[in-house]
Amino acid sequence: MPSAPPSWVQALKPSDPQGPDLLTAERKGSKVDSNRLAVLLHGQAGLDRSARLTKIIEAEPVFNKDELLSMGRVDRIQRSLARGKTLKRLEKKHGWSEEEYLAAVRISGEPNVYGLHDGMFLKTLKEQGNPEQHKLFLEPAIANRYIGCYAQTELGHGSNVRGLETTATWDPTDKTFILHSPKLTASKWWIGSLGRTANHAVVMAQLFIKGKNYGPHPFVLQIRDLDTHEPLPNIYVGDIGPKFGYNSMDNGFLLLNQVKIPHINMLGRFSTVDPQTSEYRRIGAPTLVYGTLTYIRSMIVLESGSSLARGVTIAVRYAAVRRQFQDRDAEAAGVPGETPVLNYKMVQARLLPLLAATYALHFTGKNMMELYNHNQEVMKKNELQPGAELLADLHATSCGLKALGSTIAIDGLEMCRRACGGHGYSSYSGIGTYYSDYLPTVTWEGDNYMLTQQVSRYLLKTARAVQKGNAPNNDTSKILAHYLNRQTTGAAYDVLNSDQDIVAAFAWRAAFLTFESLRLRDVQKQSWNSLLVQFYHLSTAHSQYLVIKSFYDAVFENRAKIVSEVGEATADTLRDLFRLYALHTMETHSAEFFTAGAVSVNQLTLARTSGISALLDRIRPNAVNLVDAWSFSDFQLDSSLGNYDGNVYEKLFNRARQNPVNTLTLDPNPDSTVLVKRVAKL
Amino acid sequence: MPSAPPSWVQALKPSDPQGPDLLTAERKGSKVDSNRLAVLLHGQAGLDRSARLTKIIEAEPVFNKDELLSMGRVDRIQRSLARGKTLKRLEKKHGWSEEEYLAAVRISGEPNVYGLHDGMFLKTLKEQGNPEQHKLFLEPAIANRYIGCYAQTELGHGSNVRGLETTATWDPTDKTFILHSPKLTASKWWIGSLGRTANHAVVMAQLFIKGKNYGPHPFVLQIRDLDTHEPLPNIYVGDIGPKFGYNSMDNGFLLLNQVKIPHINMLGRFSTVDPQTSEYRRIGAPTLVYGTLTYIRSMIVLESGSSLARGVTIAVRYAAVRRQFQDRDAEAAGVPGETPVLNYKMVQARLLPLLAATYALHFTGKNMMELYNHNQEVMKKNELQPGAELLADLHATSCGLKALGSTIAIDGLEMCRRACGGHGYSSYSGIGTYYSDYLPTVTWEGDNYMLTQQVSRYLLKTARAVQKGNAPNNDTSKILAHYLNRQTTGAAYDVLNSDQDIVAAFAWRAAFLTFESLRLRDVQKQSWNSLLVQFYHLSTAHSQYLVIKSFYDAVFENRAKIVSEVGEATADTLRDLFRLYALHTMETHSAEFFTAGAVSVNQLTLARTSGISALLDRIRPNAVNLVDAWSFSDFQLDSSLGNYDGNVYEKLFNRARQNPVNTLTLDPNPDSTVLVKRVAKL
Repeated sequence: MPSAPPSWVQALKPSDPQGPDLLTAERKGSKVDSNRLAVLLHGQAGLDRSARLTKIIEAEPVFNKDELLSMGRVDRIQRSLARGKTLKRLEKKHGWSEEEYLAAVRISGEPNVYGLHDGMFLKTLKEQGNPEQHKLFLEPAIANRYIGCYAQTELGHGSNVRGLETTATWDPTDKTFILHSPKLTASKWWIGSLGRTANHAVVMAQLFIKGKNYGPHPFVLQIRDLDTHEPLPNIYVGDIGPKFGYNSMDNGFLLLNQVKIPHINMLGRFSTVDPQTSEYRRIGAPTLVYGTLTYIRSMIVLESGSSLARGVTIAVRYAAVRRQFQDRDAEAAGVPGETPVLNYKMVQARLLPLLAATYALHFTGKNMMELYNHNQEVMKKNELQPGAELLADLHATSCGLKALGSTIAIDGLEMCRRACGGHGYSSYSGIGTYYSDYLPTVTWEGDNYMLTQQVSRYLLKTARAVQKGNAPNNDTSKILAHYLNRQTTGAAYDVLNSDQDIVAAFAWRAAFLTFESLRLRDVQKQSWNSLLVQFYHLSTAHSQYLVIKSFYDAVFENRAKIVSEVGEATADTLRDLFRLYALHTMETHSAEFFTAGAVSVNQLTLARTSGISALLDRIRPNAVNLVDAWSFSDFQLDSSLGNYDGNVYEKLFNRARQNPVNTLTLDPNPDSTVLVKRVAKL
Repeated sequence: MPSAPPSWVQALKPSDPQGPDLLTAERKGSKVDSNRLAVLLHGQAGLDRSARLTKIIEAEPVFNKDELLSMGRVDRIQRSLARGKTLKRLEKKHGWSEEEYLAAVRISGEPNVYGLHDGMFLKTLKEQGNPEQHKLFLEPAIANRYIGCYAQTELGHGSNVRGLETTATWDPTDKTFILHSPKLTASKWWIGSLGRTANHAVVMAQLFIKGKNYGPHPFVLQIRDLDTHEPLPNIYVGDIGPKFGYNSMDNGFLLLNQVKIPHINMLGRFSTVDPQTSEYRRIGAPTLVYGTLTYIRSMIVLESGSSLARGVTIAVRYAAVRRQFQDRDAEAAGVPGETPVLNYKMVQARLLPLLAATYALHFTGKNMMELYNHNQEVMKKNELQPGAELLADLHATSCGLKALGSTIAIDGLEMCRRACGGHGYSSYSGIGTYYSDYLPTVTWEGDNYMLTQQVSRYLLKTARAVQKGNAPNNDTSKILAHYLNRQTTGAAYDVLNSDQDIVAAFAWRAAFLTFESLRLRDVQKQSWNSLLVQFYHLSTAHSQYLVIKSFYDAVFENRAKIVSEVGEATADTLRDLFRLYALHTMETHSAEFFTAGAVSVNQLTLARTSGISALLDRIRPNAVNLVDAWSFSDFQLDSSLGNYDGNVYEKLFNRARQNPVNTLTLDPNPDSTVLVKRVAKL
């Protein structure tokens, strides 16, 4: 079967019109300049780098993705290691920078078993180790002699770091720490690269000195022999088994039975135990570490746009090629032929707001990264006393936007998959696998529901300060103060005709919900727990305001710059996307906008009916060019439905016929115990 | 590694309190009688049958599920065949009825390669074959000598059956049909059991007689040799490759090159070609076939409740065992210890409305099945002229509820998975795999978005009839007429204090949206396409009314009967579930209820805040017993998080350590080309 099909099969073509002709027509019919828009999104250097790296990766057979989809986990882990080794070989060969190497890993298509070594292990050693430890641990780690991981989460504790059960007990008699798992729930769990790959780990453990607990601290621990790769004595380590996605990663568990490590193995940049006096000493505030979490969350925000864009690219292209049914009115009018599904309002209403969201999240992420960099500079100037206010705002902003961005991306990816109809369920659609691998993002680096408490806490605190008149001078204070001043007169913004009013309406609703929560908490004295649902909505509203504002600033504040970069027509379409994203979000939460007095019911009704519908009509002809601008290579998308040329059906068919299940000739007779009569060669 | 762990590991226990103690306390603390409630849901006979079959299935090693999760697709298909053969052997051995056999398949945990043979193939032959064809095809199919499938969907056409491209051309010279795939897009696609298993297929093809197209008709075609199982000449058939789920099924493709089949192979119950005159003849109306679709959709509605209940059972039990953080206020008050996450309002607000939905969908499905059976009786009495009005209502109802029920179930399953935190992502949670396998339900048997057009068409038609005063006498007409009569006075129901008013509010909103759509279509003459989003909301609103009404009827209309069956306290809790489900649904769509004038903003605000919160408090202590009543065995749930005894961590740990990836000792040195140093025995 996987051999070449008979000639009569080879002669078959899809029925007309052909996908490539349809996509060519779409591209010609749009006024959006996808090339210039691509430069706006990624920069010319970024585009060049991607193209260069993709060419190198594509040429290596080990990165062929077809086989992965049918593999069991034992094979996938080995393939993951092979891919990882190849990437490290290519890194050397081409002299890649760290940035280029990490970009190449992303392009390679799935996480590999070195992922946590390359990321969190090196980062933690670098940021939390002192110079002596850099020499002792970081140097061999950079040389890939020590392969490490970052062991924080436990079987019984995830989000609540203070609840970790692993202990590190200082033994003054021989100047060592004793690492120990007192309970089964103390087992480290979910630790990437730990299961089969790492020979070292940074272990977070509760530091005990003379019976007193000083909280979780990081310790470097060798877990496997450098030659045999067998676990060292009193260390029980392994892979935690199959997962919904991420199966190319050996997430692991780790149990420790009174394992001794020397004094130097406690990472000492921010705190240490005096080996002579056994006294605990802080060395400055670990604000940079705090900054790392903010950085990771900001990256998630930025990447949520491009992650969603993968799905939207596939779904939009396929919807332009796939035709199903005649339009009912066209049919009645005697117009023949089936309609591309992208012409259906129900499909547009699902896909085009997501297309708008990719741009909204991209500009928001860019904005976040700028804020982060600004903050880092402030902190560098004065490491011991960083701008606490700026940090608090950045922290809250990154929490809320991480939760909102990754939720939009994951729900949007599934929406894209369903919009592809039956074929969306095939692994060859390229969406399902990516969805599964992206999914942990809503849970890790702060569970998306948990994070909304941080945002609300910050908003309540700021609202109290605004009431007292001692609030910091930032945008959050400003919108809260504005609401407080105009509260009695109400707002009723004109969101249909003014883009500024759209931003103001989102600000007003967020401020309204903030003061409502404040009243429930401070005046009505409701319990924190009883307000969690309220806080979730509050955080969502505030984060949506931030997205709207970032998108507005990107599209309107630098209008002249944007026009010079992408041209008038493309800039206009970005404005359409802004409006669609805003009105769509408003519609989804219309009760809040109305109750807040931000927008009248009449305007909301008009937005829902004619407003959104008109925007869908305007954006529809530009949809394909707008996804083209995201510039995913066919290799990256790995989708038979969404490849650039629109040759959907031949690619789907050719991948299907070559899948390894077709090597099997079964015996379907239930009375026979034979399962397979014959196995063909691949 | 997979060998027994060292003694110090074996001695480890999870930290206190232990899961089993927590679940025991939950069960004791609830006033809900889960045993009697189980009988209400499943009937004693159903419970007994499940227990009996589960025992038989569990005893067969081939049904061990641990290995499946790590397997590649080539292995999974073979295992699927092995499981299928075992089930057929057990069927014979125990003399199972068809119902028992199908229940055993469900209990076995995943679809097997005989699935479409057992289902659609036999059903189609039975319902659409004439007596001669029953003898010729059905008998060997029942004997499993012919293994078949139902080949309708094509590469280029799914929902639009009229657009199928496969042709069956009548050849009067030798009284045969020529089956042919004129284009690549004509390839049959997604056909379950076709890829590697079936030797026969019912092929849907456009019937051509003397150049005229008579539309799609069913033809029986042998596709593989009964001995060698190799494809017959001019037939190109295979498996379509890996999918997001359902990977134990060999969904297949099929291309035909002018394949001749005898006259008798066109299934002739409802239409035939006269072999002498070549004339096409209808034999009665195929309303029974129409009924089959309605039956399948009604089954999906009924099963959506229990499908969701699997996820809710796992998530609720785990949330009662898993503790994370102290409650903020408890912490401030100095109360020690972490809180079970089920005590958090945010967790309750996600899980308990889903728990309520499982019961809502169950009672709705029961109601649908009764309507279906009633309709079948009416049709049997007069096969040629069935109650067209009843059928139209049943058809629309089944379309809308299929879409709503399966959407609630799939979104709810993912909600449950996320509510399990990090461990929800492990395959051992039991939710992810089930989610992936359930997912096609939102697309097959009518795409959930497409179906809403059918519902809206029916509602518009009925509304026109109501206006003209010639509407059929059914509930839909009644609620539309009621709205029309009271439209000007408005409604403003008291949903906080009257359960009847809740039902009335849902009816009012559905009727409001119906007449709004009617105005847009008939008065404003808007295009069908421009109204698709409106129709989607309309169908959802009407279907939600049907669910609310079914739930209300089940809980209130037979209050005395319910009380006698489950006791007063449990009946009261069912009423709480009804209210929670209703208010939660209302909150999600509050803008519609307000715009429709069904409920005041004030009531909606109170419902959102105090109303729902109070119900969560009332239901919380009964949550574990309410999921217990669903009576899933641990074997069926296949979840380390959700097993009955609450022993979460030990089960998770023991499954993890035995997973086959732990047989590998890798070589992580990137400079070495060796991947695996050593493979241990499993």
